Amino acid sequence: MINIIIAGPRGRMGAEAVNMVSNEENFRLVACLDRKFNGKTLKDVEGLPDVNVPIFEDIEECFHAVDADVIVDLTIPEVGYLHTKTAIEHHIRPVVGTTGFTSEQITELELLAKEKGIGSIIAPNFAVGAVLMMKFSQMAAKYLPDVEIIEKHHDNKLDAPSGTAVKTAELIRESRDYKKQGHPNEKETINGARGAEFDGMRIHSVRLPGLVAHQEVIFGGAGQILSIKHDSLDRSSFMDGIKLAVEKVMGLDKFVYGLENIL
Amino acid sequence: MINIIIAGPRGRMGAEAVNMVSNEENFRLVACLDRKFNGKTLKDVEGLPDVNVPIFEDIEECFHAVDADVIVDLTIPEVGYLHTKTAIEHHIRPVVGTTGFTSEQITELELLAKEKGIGSIIAPNFAVGAVLMMKFSQMAAKYLPDVEIIEKHHDNKLDAPSGTAVKTAELIRESRDYKKQGHPNEKETINGARGAEFDGMRIHSVRLPGLVAHQEVIFGGAGQILSIKHDSLDRSSFMDGIKLAVEKVMGLDKFVYGLENIL
Amino acid sequence: MINIIIAGPRGRMGAEAVNMVSNEENFRLVACLDRKFNGKTLKDVEGLPDVNVPIFEDIEECFHAVDADVIVDLTIPEVGYLHTKTAIEHHIRPVVGTTGFTSEQITELELLAKEKGIGSIIAPNFAVGAVLMMKFSQMAAKYLPDVEIIEKHHDNKLDAPSGTAVKTAELIRESRDYKKQGHPNEKETINGARGAEFDGMRIHSVRLPGLVAHQEVIFGGAGQILSIKHDSLDRSSFMDGIKLAVEKVMGLDKFVYGLENIL
Amino acid sequence: MINIIIAGPRGRMGAEAVNMVSNEENFRLVACLDRKFNGKTLKDVEGLPDVNVPIFEDIEECFHAVDADVIVDLTIPEVGYLHTKTAIEHHIRPVVGTTGFTSEQITELELLAKEKGIGSIIAPNFAVGAVLMMKFSQMAAKYLPDVEIIEKHHDNKLDAPSGTAVKTAELIRESRDYKKQGHPNEKETINGARGAEFDGMRIHSVRLPGLVAHQEVIFGGAGQILSIKHDSLDRSSFMDGIKLAVEKVMGLDKFVYGLENIL
Repeated sequence: MINIIIAGPRGRMGAEAVNMVSNEENFRLVACLDRKFNGKTLKDVEGLPDVNVPIFEDIEECFHAVDADVIVDLTIPEVGYLHTKTAIEHHIRPVVGTTGFTSEQITELELLAKEKGIGSIIAPNFAVGAVLMMKFSQMAAKYLPDVEIIEKHHDNKLDAPSGTAVKTAELIRESRDYKKQGHPNEKETINGARGAEFDGMRIHSVRLPGLVAHQEVIFGGAGQILSIKHDSLDRSSFMDGIKLAVEKVMGLDKFVYGLENIL
Repeated sequence: MINIIIAGPRGRMGAEAVNMVSNEENFRLVACLDRKFNGKTLKDVEGLPDVNVPIFEDIEECFHAVDADVIVDLTIPEVGYLHTKTAIEHHIRPVVGTTGFTSEQITELELLAKEKGIGSIIAPNFAVGAVLMMKFSQMAAKYLPDVEIIEKHHDNKLDAPSGTAVKTAELIRESRDYKKQGHPNEKETINGARGAEFDGMRIHSVRLPGLVAHQEVIFGGAGQILSIKHDSLDRSSFMDGIKLAVEKVMGLDKFVYGLENIL
Repeated sequence: MINIIIAGPRGRMGAEAVNMVSNEENFRLVACLDRKFNGKTLKDVEGLPDVNVPIFEDIEECFHAVDADVIVDLTIPEVGYLHTKTAIEHHIRPVVGTTGFTSEQITELELLAKEKGIGSIIAPNFAVGAVLMMKFSQMAAKYLPDVEIIEKHHDNKLDAPSGTAVKTAELIRESRDYKKQGHPNEKETINGARGAEFDGMRIHSVRLPGLVAHQEVIFGGAGQILSIKHDSLDRSSFMDGIKLAVEKVMGLDKFVYGLENIL
Repeated sequence: MINIIIAGPRGRMGAEAVNMVSNEENFRLVACLDRKFNGKTLKDVEGLPDVNVPIFEDIEECFHAVDADVIVDLTIPEVGYLHTKTAIEHHIRPVVGTTGFTSEQITELELLAKEKGIGSIIAPNFAVGAVLMMKFSQMAAKYLPDVEIIEKHHDNKLDAPSGTAVKTAELIRESRDYKKQGHPNEKETINGARGAEFDGMRIHSVRLPGLVAHQEVIFGGAGQILSIKHDSLDRSSFMDGIKLAVEKVMGLDKFVYGLENIL
């Protein structure tokens, strides 16, 4: 049985995490950290699950009051950084889904975790399928270096290409030599047809109502095509990754950044 | 039984058409027109099927010598134009896969066919699946006007977007009002990510080794996506269309341009 | 401006329809029919939109009190049948998304609508994309009679194949001759590999967590594949169809069953 | 520069390998082994490339006459076995695409290669993309254990499911616990709809004209879908794998079975 504190139980991700932890056989929710409602329990607060789990506003107080193995932090970067640091110092393993830490903060936390010999996981993306897509893409590019990325999102997304597409392209760049793709003399009769160029590969961004968040990485070789595709429906896709990280962090004695490094 | 003359039996398309016609129960190949080999039969010429069908260099002579219902022309535009005109004058129905006729030529042939009351079919694309994809796309755009096109070809193709993609977009433009798609404030962080703009819709061109010729037309609406996709493997895909055109032309009494108009 | 009554505003579909009608420029919501809350307005009832639209429990009273062009019925079959009949008698055009009418009821309503010269639309499926997929599939099967259907749903669906897949197969059967597909000597080394047989074609049902409701109809011909795919995310996909039906019913003078017959 | 002998240059695979080796900068074709044409060169034999490379019928003679690093064997199992054994004994590294070796033969060759300290690669499938698809599928099943396989082939294929689909399912079985998928109470209203069951997962076999050889492995998790797809167009897809194996075998000092073990 793994005893878990959740920080940020009223956010969208936090609320789903409370449900997930409550429903997992080997997990026990022992407390929540929140900006408000100190001294109350979850069932006292409207919109939170009907369980008798205490809420704390102060992290030190929380650590003294309950016996926890892991803290799952789903707050904002500034808060998450303090939580993570305090947790490591108290030998509580942090699993952090907050993006936006600076590289200085990450280095500091890494050193602290090493010094204390405490497992810690920070992951900007907890969707296991998306992380596998990126990992497999990086592996495939070694053998099939001709690659294009098609990402598709709802038409209220502002930026193109998506952050995941650029991240995928960066990972592919690490595992293959620069390659200018397409025919050397190819020409666009309408500008933009061949998509965005990144390290010689091409990224295409589709925006339509009815789409959610989808990405396909397509590798071409003589006589064959390999495609790796991820479709994300909603944030529930992050729960499998958080669950996995909680399980893995129990056996770690160091700091890990990125879910891909525990897969 | 339909008696058929094939013009251009030694070209890639012509050779496949000779095989197709020879294998169809209700078709009979009665002659071929070629620039060479006058007076020989197919079986006399290396690389042609082992059948006892006469070859003619002169079309008038051919029409006098054999009793034909249909002439399937798979030559080049200049020759195809003369064949088509001569055929209509001799009351032989032309089925023509040659692209590149001028609009003047098409108008002239249309008038001639009307005058003679002879069915004639000229189709720039005989791949039934591709023609259906375009037709369905035009129909769907009426109800789901948000649309993007992804076309994929081998990486030795020079132009992007493909002719079929542009043709599809033109047909869609006819059946919907202009619509600037995507978020009004969307921005490309790498140029070209959102593809080529055509009448407010977007076209994306993928080029990779291992691809042949593929196109997907994607329609988005609230909570739903409709996709129409065509994959073309090789020119054998044209044979179903030629067969259909031969059957349909027998019941026509006028000139038809485009396979979509007999589907 | 089209004046609309919605019956069943508190159901999932009804609630979305209230929003849709409220947001359409050319539509005006004039009343709602409900089993409860007679005499109140929508804004008086928790969970309903904050608009000043009267609620009626009695349909006759409602028709007398407001000046309506169309009634959108999203209730249950028994209620829907009475609403539809009464509406036609009062020259209010019904648009009905309720499934489960008997064929006797449909025949009766058809005759009544004819007698009164009133447009009426009953559609078991208002997702425009799904209806187009079925319609296109029926059209394509005429030219490419080799077809298989893959439908994918979440793994809490009990029946396989889905109703939409069977309906699609029935429509395809109408437009092609029976064809036993696959190799005459093909054999399954594991039972069920080749899917469910329906009129010689094959239907495959995929069930996985993370899926919603998807169907792909695949047509194969020499050297080519044509695929028509529909992905449904949620019930918002029905709103485009209801909107279309409301617009179309204004110009109809008879009864229409099935959205496909107004596309 | 790697000096290469090709055994079986007149087969479909062998002929492509001759072209591939001839066109690679760092490869040099030094001889071919054939059942016929001893003493001739490739250019003497009709249908073979116009290069001045000697043909041998006897492998020992060939090994004495030329200085080779690697022998690529694309013959039949009985011959391939003898070639492989003889090559290891002569310290020529074998790269073998012949399937059908018995497990006894494989064990014997493994021991011999170990004893001689000679790198050897035998691979039943040289399509890099297909091997990656299987490898990634095995990896993904650890984290997303709900999986279904859809394989699609031309309709003259006799067996269903395909060998690759079964092999993929076996690999997935190794990396996840048994899981009965779908709803416990699901029921087929037409037999076979849910496909072939293998270790609780489902395999679906599509057979249509126009298809070549395709497989998609679909993993479902809460709110997400991960798909890994391979499309094979023709045997040229094997050349990338053979090239890779030739390069890798130079640095090996043991026997490797399966391309996946050098990726």
